Amino acid sequence: MLQRPPAEPGMREEEVDTPALILDLDAFEANLDAMAGFLAPTGTKLRAHAKTHKSSIIALEQMKRGAVGQCVQKVAEAEALAWGGVPDILVSNEVVSPRKLARLMALSRIARVALCTDHEAGIALAEQAAEAAGQRLRMLVEIDVGAARCGVQPGPAAVALAQRIAASPHLIFGGLQAYHGSAQHQRSPEQRAATIAGAVEQTRRTVEQLRQQGLDCGIVGGAGTGTFRHEATSGVYTEIQAGSYALMDADYAANEDAPPFRHALFVLTQVMSTPHDGLVVVDAGHKAIPTDSGFPRPWQRPGLRYAGASDEHGNILVEGGAAPKLGETLRLVPGHCDPTVDRYDWYVGVRKGRVECLWPVAARGAMQ
Amino acid sequence: MLQRPPAEPGMREEEVDTPALILDLDAFEANLDAMAGFLAPTGTKLRAHAKTHKSSIIALEQMKRGAVGQCVQKVAEAEALAWGGVPDILVSNEVVSPRKLARLMALSRIARVALCTDHEAGIALAEQAAEAAGQRLRMLVEIDVGAARCGVQPGPAAVALAQRIAASPHLIFGGLQAYHGSAQHQRSPEQRAATIAGAVEQTRRTVEQLRQQGLDCGIVGGAGTGTFRHEATSGVYTEIQAGSYALMDADYAANEDAPPFRHALFVLTQVMSTPHDGLVVVDAGHKAIPTDSGFPRPWQRPGLRYAGASDEHGNILVEGGAAPKLGETLRLVPGHCDPTVDRYDWYVGVRKGRVECLWPVAARGAMQ
Repeated sequence: MLQRPPAEPGMREEEVDTPALILDLDAFEANLDAMAGFLAPTGTKLRAHAKTHKSSIIALEQMKRGAVGQCVQKVAEAEALAWGGVPDILVSNEVVSPRKLARLMALSRIARVALCTDHEAGIALAEQAAEAAGQRLRMLVEIDVGAARCGVQPGPAAVALAQRIAASPHLIFGGLQAYHGSAQHQRSPEQRAATIAGAVEQTRRTVEQLRQQGLDCGIVGGAGTGTFRHEATSGVYTEIQAGSYALMDADYAANEDAPPFRHALFVLTQVMSTPHDGLVVVDAGHKAIPTDSGFPRPWQRPGLRYAGASDEHGNILVEGGAAPKLGETLRLVPGHCDPTVDRYDWYVGVRKGRVECLWPVAARGAMQ
Repeated sequence: MLQRPPAEPGMREEEVDTPALILDLDAFEANLDAMAGFLAPTGTKLRAHAKTHKSSIIALEQMKRGAVGQCVQKVAEAEALAWGGVPDILVSNEVVSPRKLARLMALSRIARVALCTDHEAGIALAEQAAEAAGQRLRMLVEIDVGAARCGVQPGPAAVALAQRIAASPHLIFGGLQAYHGSAQHQRSPEQRAATIAGAVEQTRRTVEQLRQQGLDCGIVGGAGTGTFRHEATSGVYTEIQAGSYALMDADYAANEDAPPFRHALFVLTQVMSTPHDGLVVVDAGHKAIPTDSGFPRPWQRPGLRYAGASDEHGNILVEGGAAPKLGETLRLVPGHCDPTVDRYDWYVGVRKGRVECLWPVAARGAMQ
């Protein structure tokens, strides 16, 4: 059920088996350097989100450039990273299954781990798992700063959960998780600035109320690729959880004042049918390149438009320029990098048209 | 990168790690029996589409009930099935990569394989691969019966390709592939009947024109779960390629006069956050249950509506009845079974509330 690598080092890109996940190494390294360069003067640290890249290799490349660790959403992702040598992992999400909590505690013997919570019952379950493992677990309180998903309300409700954590001999209060997901793709920069200003203000107030109760926030974490410039310079957030910045996708590129990163992630696809003038069919449908954030864009082929996806077919309309030939390969820019990466077992690292490396997508399918 | 099984035989369903792919074995077996019962008097055979189930175990269960073999879309899917003991596999799709064609020919030593084509250049590539392997390859001509995807035009263009195949010492002309994909989800039965009547007529004409040239169609294949009742009784089609019928999904259930199959496939998910009255957040987002054909439906919980998916979170609105509690598990009916199955490494087979078996999704991620 592990798929074979679709390429070997030294191959030309057009020889790679399709569909394949291409990582443009020059663009990828430039993105990592750009984020490190932006954050250095702010004093805010990067804790990159591995739900995007799912790779301990990429995680360690980020940490070489100053990232303090990684975020994940799932215990199985934490396992894949820790087993690959990542030393500091925050589960930026709630986990309320005793079996999963036991796995997380087992992991805490080889890596520094932390977990978010937004409910007293979740704290009690984590406490039992920590006690059973004979290890203390660091917990962050997730507050809802406007995204209307998980999270307790900022202010007194959050303080009460923090006090519950701090009072436990098996837990350590680690700070606040304050991520505003829906702000990331607000198109106008003014809208994003205003939304994050509100999130920062609610977070600042909660940090102060905690301090009044003698509770210091080791971590105040949040932000994504769409808004990190605001949180990083807020004076309130200590850690930035951007993930997509390393790879980029069409959805983030569609933001006005798009973040200053290059497209490093592509799906390589092959033309498998040329039924009539104006249409070519490629071998990447929505199983190969999920369409939850829109269709992919053919890369550097302005006359082509990806206009329809079925399971294993993509319909590309030829609206200008030369039609691609049967057997030709094209790069597609994914609509959304996170679910696209999660479809593949291997990154094919390419530089100057040649395959340089194959990297496993170690947390592919790690949903549990 | 292979995920651990999320359950063990004997467990209660609510103990299974979430998100997990649940196969309701009673419903699944009833679906297999119902299709076999429907087709028996027609004389038309089932060649079930494995792009839905991705499992050699399910394929063999279908063959025990009379299916003549399986369809796949990808060479890697054919490999997973053949390695699991499936003896007869049609790649119902075009393959124009020499490396993939060589893999298909290697497979033809352990299974009967066939391939579709819609272009003379594709035939030439397949011929070279067959010659190099010292094996003859059976090829079907795919005709476009209205779906506007792959396929050559019915009539003379199709006959010319068939003659090209039949003239090769390395190839065998195997018949016609005539699948109308977009008809499957036309909502009204009259619309579907009319669309398939047109497809049948074009196919019938092409079969006759081939016969006039001395070319017999061993296989005339097509149809899906939405339309198979028409093709099976057409007197033209010899093989039905339905796949979803075994599992079913919300999209097929939304057809008027929905096909007579039960929901056998579910994603089990856990409530991980209960932020406020009216909203619970579950641990299955669009990575766990793709939304290309709409959001999933909570199963047998009429007051609940799945109303928003992010990568790893699903927002369920509580519009009536009791709200599910933190930690509670729910079954979700996928919008689209094919991409949902392809997200998982394991089927968890459940009967009467208990886990009966774990089956690998052997062709999970088999895109190449």
